Amino acid sequence: MAVHLLATLTAKPGKFDELASHFRTLATQVHAHEPDTLIYYALENKASNELIVIEKYKNAQVQANHGKTAYFQAFFATVGPLLAGKPVLKKCASVVGGGFEGRGETAAKL
Amino acid sequence: MAVHLLATLTAKPGKFDELASHFRTLATQVHAHEPDTLIYYALENKASNELIVIEKYKNAQVQANHGKTAYFQAFFATVGPLLAGKPVLKKCASVVGGGFEGRGETAAKL
Repeated sequence: MAVHLLATLTAKPGKFDELASHFRTLATQVHAHEPDTLIYYALENKASNELIVIEKYKNAQVQANHGKTAYFQAFFATVGPLLAGKPVLKKCASVVGGGFEGRGETAAKL
Repeated sequence: MAVHLLATLTAKPGKFDELASHFRTLATQVHAHEPDTLIYYALENKASNELIVIEKYKNAQVQANHGKTAYFQAFFATVGPLLAGKPVLKKCASVVGGGFEGRGETAAKL
């Protein structure tokens, strides 16, 4: 069963762009090395200086493997000083029949 | 420019399934009537009884039009009594180059 994760990272004032740039590097590696990580992108919530990461993994094992990669751990070691607090993680399940993840044929209709 | 929205609806105890079922009806209408609503799906955060809706609109006008539809307004009139509080809306921008919205060819690489 797919695992969805919403991770909210709040940047210190003036540190959002630096945080986002490190995230780009991470996302490129995730795309290249984790074919079963199905969704992985960041949004900027300007109102609260938040980088919100939308994540979907084929299953719990894929998510666990993601967390153990060297590049993921390096990302958090690097961005730690840029964060205003601990990341907030919301582990979610999809609501079956509850919408569409995209408009392309391959995008999952839940 | 695309508009991303994260809407968090917290259900009263025991009311999540009823809320999710109304959302399914809404999402079906959005899929059918709003070709420029590009992403629209719900996640369940069991830990906090939250229905979290991930939304992406082609632009701000498309999002405004969505909010004025009869079926969207009917949804909120219906689910109001099921909610433990006001919905929390986060209006976001995408982080350019910050990940991928899916693995299909049509899924946007940001």
